[in-house]
Formats: sequence, structure tokens, C-alpha cells
Amino acid sequence: MGKLLIVGTLAFDAIESPFGKTDKILGGAATFIGLAASKFDVSSAIVSVVGDDFPQEYLDLLTERNIDISGVEIVQGGKTFYWKGKYHNDLNSRDTLVTELNTLADFKPVVPENFKDADVVMLGNLHPSIQMSVINQMNMRPKLIVLDTMNFWMDNSLEELKEVITKIDVITINDEEARQLTNEYSLVKAAERIHAMGPKYVVIKKGEHGALLFHKHNIFFAPALPLEEVFDPTGAGDTFAGGFAGYLTATENTSFENLKNAVIQGSNLASFCVEKFGTERMQNLTKTEISKRLRQFAALTQFNIELE
Amino acid sequence: MGKLLIVGTLAFDAIESPFGKTDKILGGAATFIGLAASKFDVSSAIVSVVGDDFPQEYLDLLTERNIDISGVEIVQGGKTFYWKGKYHNDLNSRDTLVTELNTLADFKPVVPENFKDADVVMLGNLHPSIQMSVINQMNMRPKLIVLDTMNFWMDNSLEELKEVITKIDVITINDEEARQLTNEYSLVKAAERIHAMGPKYVVIKKGEHGALLFHKHNIFFAPALPLEEVFDPTGAGDTFAGGFAGYLTATENTSFENLKNAVIQGSNLASFCVEKFGTERMQNLTKTEISKRLRQFAALTQFNIELE
Repeated sequence: MGKLLIVGTLAFDAIESPFGKTDKILGGAATFIGLAASKFDVSSAIVSVVGDDFPQEYLDLLTERNIDISGVEIVQGGKTFYWKGKYHNDLNSRDTLVTELNTLADFKPVVPENFKDADVVMLGNLHPSIQMSVINQMNMRPKLIVLDTMNFWMDNSLEELKEVITKIDVITINDEEARQLTNEYSLVKAAERIHAMGPKYVVIKKGEHGALLFHKHNIFFAPALPLEEVFDPTGAGDTFAGGFAGYLTATENTSFENLKNAVIQGSNLASFCVEKFGTERMQNLTKTEISKRLRQFAALTQFNIELE
Repeated sequence: MGKLLIVGTLAFDAIESPFGKTDKILGGAATFIGLAASKFDVSSAIVSVVGDDFPQEYLDLLTERNIDISGVEIVQGGKTFYWKGKYHNDLNSRDTLVTELNTLADFKPVVPENFKDADVVMLGNLHPSIQMSVINQMNMRPKLIVLDTMNFWMDNSLEELKEVITKIDVITINDEEARQLTNEYSLVKAAERIHAMGPKYVVIKKGEHGALLFHKHNIFFAPALPLEEVFDPTGAGDTFAGGFAGYLTATENTSFENLKNAVIQGSNLASFCVEKFGTERMQNLTKTEISKRLRQFAALTQFNIELE
């Protein structure tokens, strides 16, 4: 069974959206990535940090899904990373109301010995120096290193981010971030620039407008499934990344053709994530539901035109 | 050969974009629709009005492409409809600087006798009472009536617009307009509401984010081709509509499966239209270029995932 190493946050999120609000609930990039990847046949581990306020039931929720948490440091007397955000009416933009780094501020990741030979490494959104530290701890070059990041690190740690970008195979980034990183408005040109920085594959996430996969001069596009209701976009990008990395780990095939499938799988899982607050939908999602919606994805884009 | 009747403006456009500006050049919905439809094997006619300031070479440009202009009224001493617009830096929004209706203000469309039995009627963006007048002049119910409209008519002639919407088979409309028409933010819900107003098929155009085709509970999505440069979006929506209607007229098949193909053909042609100012790219576009890019469209979205 393929091994997937995930680094990212385990967190408390509090969310306000036009549809309601939550108290502190389970969140964090590694949580969403791990839950999404667990829908595939993989052996995965999370490297992260929490305080002793992080409920045992949240850890159990991960271990029950065959996710190794021996790389999750529990800081006694420490508090878990906390994020509070409020979505605007169109759900495409949000304000961050609270960010408390807490134990994350001094986090030194330690990769478990039995995951230093992981096939795929998924570097969730975190300080680039933490992402780099994980790469440096690997015993051998993984078959695929996937990195997710955001504008915050471009604003505050650009040089370190650029350094880690030279070490990876796939970057997942949203459209505005791709523009910020490259000063190119055209996403085609932005992807070319990012290719030149290192990654063979560039995935540009466009939220409700889908995702683009670039490889040399080839482009593949996966739409987002048009939904009647989007309830809470929190974690959709991480779920996409987790589905993408999980599928590639399970299929042990990193060809461009299979990366297309991985983008579809990631988009498919993300379409569930947004239907409920936080991780709720991902916790209960069944393989039957996933297969059924995958057929909808195929119906959405597949056509049969006569090409001359 | 299938017959396509087109109603819409023939116009002078003056365009400012971040890439430059034009003097008065050939524009108008019927122009773009006609040029796009002429890429397919159809017999088409335009119903429109111009002043005697409209150059003969523009009319020749249409007739050379087998477009019947006997339904184009030339008002002696009158001036042709004129629109001047300025695009913002992202090309997704624009300001209208000048709108001179001129001869369009009193336009009474007259459908040529030999097109009163057209297979497909493409009602380009115009006052809904003009669109209705064209429908009423047909000798028999066309196989397909396609209507394009815009927010201007929702603001100013909503009741007449709703009346003509009850008479048509396909509406093409952009995302913001679909939301305005239905008061629904979700495009899935908006399409359901528009279905209930009459049209069996609803096409929602999302510009650089592609187009959605809704039919009952089925959805098909065609991406816009990611381009290195977008030069001038003017006429892209009309070119989409012209490609859509032209393909359906040529193939004489109005099944949902074939409408999918028509959406792809329309998107394909629109991807060329934006590469140059005005109609320039569409005038010189060859069938070989069209076929080649159609293959790119297929590569962009077609995948081969194992469905359980």
C-alpha cells in the first residue's frame, strides 16, 4: 500500500457564513487533507502540533481512518492553533477575524521513522521553513512532493517559499495567488513562470470555477460541480489537495494522464466538503456517494464530437 | 442545407482596452453571430438596420460568406448604431462610454420571405419587442429558437422580455444576468427558475470561466480555453451564440447530446474572437484552425477514469 505523508495544521475553526455560525470546531489543513486522502486505499501519517486542549475524540477520528498520528506533537499546557473567519454573502471572499498561532508558533516538525520513505509527501499550507524541514528529513526522494501554500507566505516569507518551490513536483495554488507570485494576469503565463521556478506540474485552483492542471504546454481543466447550495467553503482547497495526493498515492502512477484523474478526484471530494460546516460532510462520506458523483463529473464535461 | 435566421445589430464599435484603442470599426451582435455561423455549412440571413453611413465593404464581407442581407434595411440619411466602450485592466468589466441608437431606435424588423421557414432562429441581443416581432413573422414554428439578451432589457423592458422568453427553446445569458433575472445566487437554482419561465435549455455564459448548459436536471459544462492573451472580449458572447446556433443548424439535430457539442463549438469560436480587436480574427479564421483548436478543447477536459 502506498504511503502518504501529510504535514499541515490541526486546528480549531470558528466559522460565520450567511447560513449560520459555529463554535470552535475541528479544522486545519492536515485534517481536511487526511480525511480526503482516507477515501483511497493509502497508508497515511500526519505531522503536526496541537495543545492539550485538542480533544481526544478528534485524534480518534483520524486514527479510526487509518491515519498515523505518531508525528502529531501534543504540547502539554499549550493551546491549539485557532482560526476564526467570516464569509461574505457570495462565499467567494472572507475576512479573518482571529488567528492564534499558539503551539504552531514554535513548531518543529518530526517525521516518523516509518514514513521517511513515503511515496508521496503532501505539504499543506504552513510556513515554508516547516515544509522544507519535512523534505529534508526524508530518507529518499519521494516519488512526488506536492505543495499547497497561500498569499500570506508570499507577503511574509517569499524567499523561503521560493526555495521550497524549487524542491517540489506539484504546486497547488489559487488563481489570485498565482498572479501575485508571478506578476502575470494570464493564468497560462503565470503557470509558465511557476514551471520555471521548479515544479513540473502546476495546479491553479479557481474555487467555484474549477481547477487547471498545467504540464509543459499541456493544460487540463476540471470544473467544480455546480451545486444548488454552497454552505461553507472552509477546507475545500485542502480537501482538493488531499483527494489529489491520496489518489496518486493509491494508484502509484504519476503520469500526466493520471494527474488528470487526480484533479477530478480532488474536485469531486471538494464538492462534498462545501455542503456542510467544517469536516462534517467529509466524516460521513461513503464510497458509494463518491462513485455516484464521479459519474456526474464525467457527465458534466465529457462530449463526443466528431473531430476532422 | 439548414436555414438560420439571425436578428441583431449591425454596428460601429469603438473599443478601448489595456492593449490599445480603435476608431469606429465593424461590430454588432448580428455581425459576430453571422461570421461565427458562417464557419458551418448553413444558409443564413440577417435581419437588421443600418444607416447609409455603413460601408458597402462591410455588407460585402457578409454576402461573401453566404449571408443573405435582403433583410437588412438601409435607412437613407440615417446613421448606424454606434457603441463605444472601455475595458478595465482585467478585461472582465467595461464601461459604456457612448451608445447612439440612431436608426435602431425605430427599427421594425422584416423577415425575408424565403427565411420565414428557417430551421433555427437566433435572436441576438435587442429590444424584446423586436425579437418577438421576428418570431411572429415566421410561417411555421422553427425547430429551435435561441435568444440572447442582457441586463439592459431586464432593467428597462422586463415584462416584454419575460413574454418573449415564454416562446423560445434556448436562452443564452451571462451569470450575473441569470442571477438578476431570478434573484437566485446559485446558478443551478437560477437555471431551474428560467426553465420554469419557458426555455427547455438554459445556457449560462461565464466569460473566461466557460459556459454551462442546463436541461432538466442535466448539466453540461464547457470551459473557456485558457489563453495567453485576451485582447478584446467584444463580441465573444455573440460569437458563442453564432457558433452554437450555426452548428445546430448545420447538423439538424437538437438533442441534448448535440447541444453539448454546440456549446463546445461556440466556446471554441469565442476563444478566437478575443484574440484580436473586433471582428478581425473571425474574418480570417480557417476551418483548419478551428479543427485544431477543437482538439485542444477535447484534450482540455476529456479524461479516462475508471468508474466503479
